Amino acid sequence: MSGLSRLLQPQSVAVVGASADPAKTSGRPVGYLRKHGFQGRIYPINPKASEIDGLRCYPDVRSLPEAPDVAIVLLGAERTQQAIRDLAAIGTGAAIVLASGYSETGEDGARRQRELREAAGSMRILGPNTIGLVNLTDRIILSASGALEVDKLHSGAIGLVSQSGGILGALLSRAAARGIGFSKLISTSNEVDLDLADFVDALADDPATRVIALYVESIRNPKTFMAAARKAARAGKPIVAFKIGRSESGAQAAASHTGALAGADGMYDALFEEVGIIRAQTFSDLLDIPAALANERKLGGRRVAILTSTGGAGTLVADCLGVAGFTLPAPDAHTGAALRALQTGDHAALDRNPIDVTLAGLQPDLLRSAIRIVLESDDYDALVVIVGSSAVAQPELMAGALRDSLALSCKPLLAYISPHAPEAAEVLSRYGIPAFHAPESVSAALSAMWRVQARGAHVADRPRTVTLTPVVCEETGSLDEAQAKALFSRFGVPGVREITVRSEAEAVEAARQLGPRVVLKLLSREITHKSEVGGVAVNVTPQDMAQRLRQMAADVQRHTGREPEAYLVQEMVSGAAEVIVGLHQDSLGTAILLGMGGVVAELIRDTTLLLLPEDGAALTADEVEAALRRLKTWPLLDGYRGRERADVPALIEAVLAFSRMAGALQGQLLEAEINPLFVKPLGQGVCAADGIAILQEASN
Amino acid sequence: MSGLSRLLQPQSVAVVGASADPAKTSGRPVGYLRKHGFQGRIYPINPKASEIDGLRCYPDVRSLPEAPDVAIVLLGAERTQQAIRDLAAIGTGAAIVLASGYSETGEDGARRQRELREAAGSMRILGPNTIGLVNLTDRIILSASGALEVDKLHSGAIGLVSQSGGILGALLSRAAARGIGFSKLISTSNEVDLDLADFVDALADDPATRVIALYVESIRNPKTFMAAARKAARAGKPIVAFKIGRSESGAQAAASHTGALAGADGMYDALFEEVGIIRAQTFSDLLDIPAALANERKLGGRRVAILTSTGGAGTLVADCLGVAGFTLPAPDAHTGAALRALQTGDHAALDRNPIDVTLAGLQPDLLRSAIRIVLESDDYDALVVIVGSSAVAQPELMAGALRDSLALSCKPLLAYISPHAPEAAEVLSRYGIPAFHAPESVSAALSAMWRVQARGAHVADRPRTVTLTPVVCEETGSLDEAQAKALFSRFGVPGVREITVRSEAEAVEAARQLGPRVVLKLLSREITHKSEVGGVAVNVTPQDMAQRLRQMAADVQRHTGREPEAYLVQEMVSGAAEVIVGLHQDSLGTAILLGMGGVVAELIRDTTLLLLPEDGAALTADEVEAALRRLKTWPLLDGYRGRERADVPALIEAVLAFSRMAGALQGQLLEAEINPLFVKPLGQGVCAADGIAILQEASN
Repeated sequence: MSGLSRLLQPQSVAVVGASADPAKTSGRPVGYLRKHGFQGRIYPINPKASEIDGLRCYPDVRSLPEAPDVAIVLLGAERTQQAIRDLAAIGTGAAIVLASGYSETGEDGARRQRELREAAGSMRILGPNTIGLVNLTDRIILSASGALEVDKLHSGAIGLVSQSGGILGALLSRAAARGIGFSKLISTSNEVDLDLADFVDALADDPATRVIALYVESIRNPKTFMAAARKAARAGKPIVAFKIGRSESGAQAAASHTGALAGADGMYDALFEEVGIIRAQTFSDLLDIPAALANERKLGGRRVAILTSTGGAGTLVADCLGVAGFTLPAPDAHTGAALRALQTGDHAALDRNPIDVTLAGLQPDLLRSAIRIVLESDDYDALVVIVGSSAVAQPELMAGALRDSLALSCKPLLAYISPHAPEAAEVLSRYGIPAFHAPESVSAALSAMWRVQARGAHVADRPRTVTLTPVVCEETGSLDEAQAKALFSRFGVPGVREITVRSEAEAVEAARQLGPRVVLKLLSREITHKSEVGGVAVNVTPQDMAQRLRQMAADVQRHTGREPEAYLVQEMVSGAAEVIVGLHQDSLGTAILLGMGGVVAELIRDTTLLLLPEDGAALTADEVEAALRRLKTWPLLDGYRGRERADVPALIEAVLAFSRMAGALQGQLLEAEINPLFVKPLGQGVCAADGIAILQEASN
Repeated sequence: MSGLSRLLQPQSVAVVGASADPAKTSGRPVGYLRKHGFQGRIYPINPKASEIDGLRCYPDVRSLPEAPDVAIVLLGAERTQQAIRDLAAIGTGAAIVLASGYSETGEDGARRQRELREAAGSMRILGPNTIGLVNLTDRIILSASGALEVDKLHSGAIGLVSQSGGILGALLSRAAARGIGFSKLISTSNEVDLDLADFVDALADDPATRVIALYVESIRNPKTFMAAARKAARAGKPIVAFKIGRSESGAQAAASHTGALAGADGMYDALFEEVGIIRAQTFSDLLDIPAALANERKLGGRRVAILTSTGGAGTLVADCLGVAGFTLPAPDAHTGAALRALQTGDHAALDRNPIDVTLAGLQPDLLRSAIRIVLESDDYDALVVIVGSSAVAQPELMAGALRDSLALSCKPLLAYISPHAPEAAEVLSRYGIPAFHAPESVSAALSAMWRVQARGAHVADRPRTVTLTPVVCEETGSLDEAQAKALFSRFGVPGVREITVRSEAEAVEAARQLGPRVVLKLLSREITHKSEVGGVAVNVTPQDMAQRLRQMAADVQRHTGREPEAYLVQEMVSGAAEVIVGLHQDSLGTAILLGMGGVVAELIRDTTLLLLPEDGAALTADEVEAALRRLKTWPLLDGYRGRERADVPALIEAVLAFSRMAGALQGQLLEAEINPLFVKPLGQGVCAADGIAILQEASN
């Protein structure tokens, strides 16, 4: 058994630094284990005690009768390292290190953390600075934190991994109050060894876990994380993540716009998108969405029925669902007649959706019948039942009716609770009916269900036929525009027709060849923002060329103090859409930025990032098209308002070529951007009109 | 005293249809009044009883010894009308009609509702179909609804008006659990007489009310509503509104784009903006934001300190605040030193913000000192204290420390509660410290405070120097482009230079005058979407004109079956920004739609609506500029990335002229749109390049 498996389901637990005083923090772990009926062996270790809570106490690690599966280390940072060394030496599976004072405190702590890693050898470590791990499936609490003490919480199907111990405690506490159950809860904290990815991987294998919830501060190992996320997808387990750090300012690349357009947090969106992770938009969604996904009901479409016995709340939920793109069709004649036959409420209100069954609020039988009728209708893909004030006094009454209805259909059945009725929410959750207090959560949960359904298994198994072969580019440093486009062209991105010139005569001749009107540009390796120094002129005729070039020389000289040595003469392209294609790289990986060109698109930051596969494979055409369709301005390429359709197939080919370049030159290519890439009408192709590329020497 | 004042603070209440059986709904109102110690006179009316709950019971309205201030009418719809007539006849102040079966049920009900209005005469009516009114300031419950029974709820400073009774009950229940107090709660429901505006007006005068919360389905009387909202603003009482109906599809005007661009719900945004109402973005904000505004603390800036004794939650709140545009400066040297002197927690964590005072979680004295130190720092405008798990067991401990700190400073002091700790939240709220469970609510509340502060008294008293004089336009129907622009020009919006032509020869001559290159357009009253029928040609030289005009004639003939009779030859304008200026009218009023022109801006719907003053006054230049600055694409006019600045003063003048036209032709002008209005570089003015206007006959 691996150390990680032993950590998740230990048969034996050593508690290093256990105290005989249950009032002390270090007195808790042994008590927690026993209280919840841990069936394995418990080994308290404390040189000053011979017995703790009736258990034999050992003076040190070396005295233990066996190598424990898990050791909870309650010592301070200064004594922890030796304990870890001893635990590793005897073959302990994994150690949970609670001490703080490591990388979270600065340079000294970071050094201490490296030493801890070395001391552990092949033994796995959870932490340091963690509050531990709770296996609720088997009711094993490996923690000293009061926050992880569980009286009320039921086991359930949500596996939670949090990079913050405090947040783990908060979620546990909130979920307990709402009747939401977990399978496992793990706080990875400093992640000296075991990290998010390890536990996502383990939870993908865990039969008790059906949904994985993640509280993410930063992903340290994107490759293993993505592999683990794909494994979870293959196992049919959706992942919901709440990620902080959204307000940090994005890295600004020096030469290109790509860095600024990618934004602070865009790479996380791209990564989550790539592996099918649902991003929770609010903190409460991190409980609400997994709770809704945990019962594994499939949402077959976007038509929702709302059954209500209280005015107002049904309309409120309907409004939120409408905003999120769901439809609420009225009952058809058959369904309406069946509802009317129940003799509940005002008949007129049964022809509408929300369907108002006023009297059913206090009559479970009526409610059960109404639910059955609605679930049987082919017009609805899901049902939301509004729980009114009657549930405050008698939570079991309505909850029981809903529970009985679960067997009638496989459609999602959700509850919205209008008054403050925590007992009703708890009972419903325990019965497997997601229950929400916020109307926005109902739509967030259904949207997540729809997303899971719409994506299907696509995320797990995408065809990767092409694997990129690394190449070396001899040219390094900041390339000039002509060189950059030549590089892009080598990989298959066509450029505009252009001629490099070094004199007025050459320029005039080039204009004659490329005219009737051409673009004249400064050509320079140093100056990337050409237009800011007067280095771009459009609409130049052969007749005007000589004069225009002299003026540009003077302008550039005035701005930069140096006269240009070379210019580019380019064909004028008109009637084409403009797109930006850029390379963005950070610790999460390499991505292609796509966006509509032009200043308006730049202002509204209508861009998207497409992560390159972590295994060095190439993107597929489908992925590029899906990314382009995420742009708000996508209709501009797609024949909006009777415009000519743009050559999207050629655009996709160019993006694939650009991404092949990014993959092949990985490690060498620091910045790359085509801005704009002209996309001509369908059948006429694309061409790069400007380009930036910065390369460093190949590393070997 | 007015009927409305008598309703809000009655000295005598008649209960028409009171039952002696407290188990019945109709048995509740008398019980509610007595239980909460109503000091006035109570008159049960029921012909079948002589006494109810020890009170003398009257057989009918005419037997009453006085005209009551309020009558609660518990009868069914069929008997209510006669009771209303009788109550009005004896001089009752106001009747609360609980019966349903009125306008909410269709045409018959709508007729019944009109008859009810007539029966009431000058007596005021709340309802019908209402669940009533609760005056918590004086603890007078005028309702038969179990949802409005209050055991736990404290009186407070929030006056709530809801157009849904069910939602009122839900909010009351949720607020009670959280310790949030109300002054008055009113459900207006069908609004046969008293409506939202009446109660906003009354609450503006109510000394117990400091914030007004509104649940809005639709505003029936925008003029009185806006006047009441302005009165509340003058009284320094912010209004927070949650509005549903957000997903209804917007009205599409036939000829112009304005309707579609205005969107379903944009007029409510414009109206709320105009009178300074804060729009709650989520349902929970409708409690959270008023709770934060109720203590009337002023937020002087956007620098927030977070004091935490629990890991994770501080970072989470900081992230939400960062997303909302707040800054979290680290403590300066002086503050840091003072915090370190408290000897609480890790010293390193005191140099950062969130400021981690770990040990203070269980030590109120330490916490009190830390709060004092932070509040005294000039670097912070507000303080958020994170409440951790210690508050679950001992809610009073931390809450007491926070309460004591209120006297130290006038800065906003808020609490975020990390675990499930409802008691802590309730105690804090009762102490006057807004307490939140959602990190997003903390930022929503502070954002609302900032908005209230930044707007100041501006909303209440805006200078209205120009009042518009109505004029009559003789030309009616759908104007052609030249007529439309001539109309706009009469009110002061310049158009492009153009000549109407009816032959090739005239067209060629016009092109010579306006050339070297011109625009040729079909001129027609019927065809507004000219480009879709081949009716627009740009970049036409005098030489090409004859041929181009023939081609257009053929194209239009092919598309429409008719040959054009007239054309417009226009100057070509280049280097100008394009803006759309449109007229949008619905039941809420008349608004000017402003947006950047061009297809990208249209796709992203970057538009804003500016409501015309309800009193027939003109807009001001400041209002127009503020609206333009709300556009995401505003920088395009403002010299973005070294572009030439556009002539914004001329644009503002043109918008003012357009709005004067809208005001002056109110009732006649059905549609009007300039698309595009060219905005040339600063100093060079604006000109309308295309226009649509549809007028009907003046009504007198």
